[in-house]
Amino acid sequence: MSSVHLTDVVLRDGHQSLIATRMRTDDMLPICDSLDKIGYHSLEVWGGATFDACVRFLKEDPWVRLKSLKEALPNTPLQMLLRGQNLLGYRHYADDVVTAFVHRAAENGIDIFRVFDALNDLRNLETAMKAVKSAGKHAQGTICYTVSPVHTLDLYVEQAHRLVDMGADSIAIKDMAGLLTPYATKDLVEALVNAVDVPIHLHSHATAGLAAQCQLKAIEAGCRHVDTCISAFGGGTSHPATESLVAALKGTEFDTGLDLEALKDVGDYFREVRKKYAGFESEFTREDISVQINQVPGGMMSNLASQMKEQNALSRIREVFDEIPKVRQDLGYPPLVTPTSQIVGTQAVMNVLSGERYKTITNEVKRYLQGGYGKSPAGVDQALLKQAIGNADVEEGRPADQLSPEMERLTSTIGDLAKSEEDVLTYAMFPDMAETFLREREDGTLTPEAIPEAEGSSRPVSEG
Amino acid sequence: MSSVHLTDVVLRDGHQSLIATRMRTDDMLPICDSLDKIGYHSLEVWGGATFDACVRFLKEDPWVRLKSLKEALPNTPLQMLLRGQNLLGYRHYADDVVTAFVHRAAENGIDIFRVFDALNDLRNLETAMKAVKSAGKHAQGTICYTVSPVHTLDLYVEQAHRLVDMGADSIAIKDMAGLLTPYATKDLVEALVNAVDVPIHLHSHATAGLAAQCQLKAIEAGCRHVDTCISAFGGGTSHPATESLVAALKGTEFDTGLDLEALKDVGDYFREVRKKYAGFESEFTREDISVQINQVPGGMMSNLASQMKEQNALSRIREVFDEIPKVRQDLGYPPLVTPTSQIVGTQAVMNVLSGERYKTITNEVKRYLQGGYGKSPAGVDQALLKQAIGNADVEEGRPADQLSPEMERLTSTIGDLAKSEEDVLTYAMFPDMAETFLREREDGTLTPEAIPEAEGSSRPVSEG
Ligand SMILES: [Co+2]
Ligand SMILES: [Co+2]
Repeated sequence: MSSVHLTDVVLRDGHQSLIATRMRTDDMLPICDSLDKIGYHSLEVWGGATFDACVRFLKEDPWVRLKSLKEALPNTPLQMLLRGQNLLGYRHYADDVVTAFVHRAAENGIDIFRVFDALNDLRNLETAMKAVKSAGKHAQGTICYTVSPVHTLDLYVEQAHRLVDMGADSIAIKDMAGLLTPYATKDLVEALVNAVDVPIHLHSHATAGLAAQCQLKAIEAGCRHVDTCISAFGGGTSHPATESLVAALKGTEFDTGLDLEALKDVGDYFREVRKKYAGFESEFTREDISVQINQVPGGMMSNLASQMKEQNALSRIREVFDEIPKVRQDLGYPPLVTPTSQIVGTQAVMNVLSGERYKTITNEVKRYLQGGYGKSPAGVDQALLKQAIGNADVEEGRPADQLSPEMERLTSTIGDLAKSEEDVLTYAMFPDMAETFLREREDGTLTPEAIPEAEGSSRPVSEG
Repeated sequence: MSSVHLTDVVLRDGHQSLIATRMRTDDMLPICDSLDKIGYHSLEVWGGATFDACVRFLKEDPWVRLKSLKEALPNTPLQMLLRGQNLLGYRHYADDVVTAFVHRAAENGIDIFRVFDALNDLRNLETAMKAVKSAGKHAQGTICYTVSPVHTLDLYVEQAHRLVDMGADSIAIKDMAGLLTPYATKDLVEALVNAVDVPIHLHSHATAGLAAQCQLKAIEAGCRHVDTCISAFGGGTSHPATESLVAALKGTEFDTGLDLEALKDVGDYFREVRKKYAGFESEFTREDISVQINQVPGGMMSNLASQMKEQNALSRIREVFDEIPKVRQDLGYPPLVTPTSQIVGTQAVMNVLSGERYKTITNEVKRYLQGGYGKSPAGVDQALLKQAIGNADVEEGRPADQLSPEMERLTSTIGDLAKSEEDVLTYAMFPDMAETFLREREDGTLTPEAIPEAEGSSRPVSEG
């Protein structure tokens, strides 16, 4: 046995999970020297929702953030979360955009790329994984964990094999909803450790209060790489505290070797930082067992509550929670994470409010049924398919095969506002918003949003 | 193997740990019917600091609370925490008071008595344990967990044997500070399970973020009784969430059999209740790794911070934290819990502020060194002993042997204000405060304290 290696997610998933991805680079840089000396396996610092939040709210150039962090953290591998063919945007991009994005991210400082697809359709990872390898960086293939009749250990093992075949240097188990239980973790990790030779990483959200136990069972089963978050941004919909796992393993065969006093100083720093963002706290980021009851992730529940409230139908929310597993079954059991959580949730609301299931079918569900997001884990309901798309064909190929190269068009459309390929890629992610951002940057008028007053907000959150 | 049984501590340790023991009976009774149907092994509802808080702040008769809870919870065994010869007060009582107290508690509804002594001096448990047995109730002997060169597995096993010899129907491991780590828990529970035939109960505070893992390792090692707290009052300096452990064990050989949906309703109820007491929340009740670094419990650190602040010496608090282990060593490694945490902490502050160790020695340290609290776990520093008490004798007998019966005197002193033996016992616990309470009750002028406005209080807390 050997010691356990930690990835701290405070600079990405920690603040994404707890304060709506609002931490500013200015609050990251002063502690980087301390973070860099801890001896982490890696620091997750980029990707997920941070790119969007930088451009939309903070009026920071996400590429400049990355470069600054790289400079401030010269000794620690930097890691990002990448949504496969979606990159950090909300649609599928053509392969040339994916390749360019990965290469620029590598060039600017990312060492480890965690690549995932919401449906676990590995065709949506292919281009990104290839690009990571061609950039000479660490490609981490991801299994989005969910629970369904088709999501068996065998399926996950097969996916791990295929990820290794695609060149994965390691495999991440991504439990974005906090669905894992300790003994399910044990079984899954054991199966994966036995199946493949690359390291297994565990990323399990503490939403249901089970993740710390899952980490321990994973480690006992042979997992040697665990994601944690410094306590100031740990717990709830974020991850178990780094300090706690370090203390738990101290003096055992799994000892991380990290220094608790040094970690305490980092925690004290971030505790002060968090206070500044109190206005972004939400009661929906607290520990909540619901996901273990009805498989509906916490972030999704809060979004649905908002939707139902707007429709003056909050009293019927339990019907929606009951409807969600049915819609999910009709759609072939997709894991519930962006964008599938929105697709399933919105249709479930419609099914309840209209008084008749699938009286209205959303465009996203139609697109999903047509194969626009990739292949569903299990077959979809055939009657629903027929009702939704009639005799139209289901696309069975890799979704991105439908897309022509776009870099040239993007470059010429944004024109002089883009000073670099990075700028073009920012534009590719969020065209309208990025154009405004680039123009304001040129005009010198970029103005970050005001940080709101702290007060018991009930802002909905997204799972990640 | 068999299923795991849970004790929920929300009505005692949960609110004691998180909202300064302020939950009122009126906020307990409406949910009792639901709690009673859950199927808990027991509910901890009384003792610890609740008795004091009822009389001092809430102006509730603690005996009336107990009777009301017993009536509202007819199907679930009720449990209390008793400080051995200290009962629920802050001095040693004569044996007749201890016996009377236990008998009245049993008569009014307590089924399970968890009895402990801060020094693990079992002579301080003798009378209470005998009284529980003579009342025909469940006597749970307690091991206060701490870490020191003399606190070996062998010592704990020997203590367990002696507790069983005293008639203990079960043994509780009381980790009031959150010092246990998962693998230390495994070793301790294994040793105890192998040594004695009675059930082992685990009571571990989540202070350092390790307790959920400790619970899991304890269960795997054969522990079948675990203390948890419904999530609304779980985590931080309280206990891991009940719902989480139920979900973690669901479908395994350890399955608790409890219903998550029913628990969720209970959690939702208490989440609303907690809001009402927001003014008693404290930043010192959050998860904090410090105790794993310097063995100073969270509650003790916050109290010391207050003391140092009053002396305008907050900047020297780290010197105090460094001094505490030294004082504790000089005193023979007492576990740090009321009253030893105060005794050690205050002396450490003096040692730092006076610029010379033991320039001044507190009366409590002198009394401790003389054996006034019982026998210290290891020998005390001989030079300090000599300096503190000169040639005076060290009392080596059971402290309570020095005390003559007191019930008669107490009964006559309080006179007509006491309407029952219960009232006399209340008077015994807190003479001045209880006299006021009983008089105001007679006058019909009892007035509960006002509930303060919610605002980031930094109120110190006590560990329990
Ligand atoms: Co995540
Ligand atoms: Co306690």
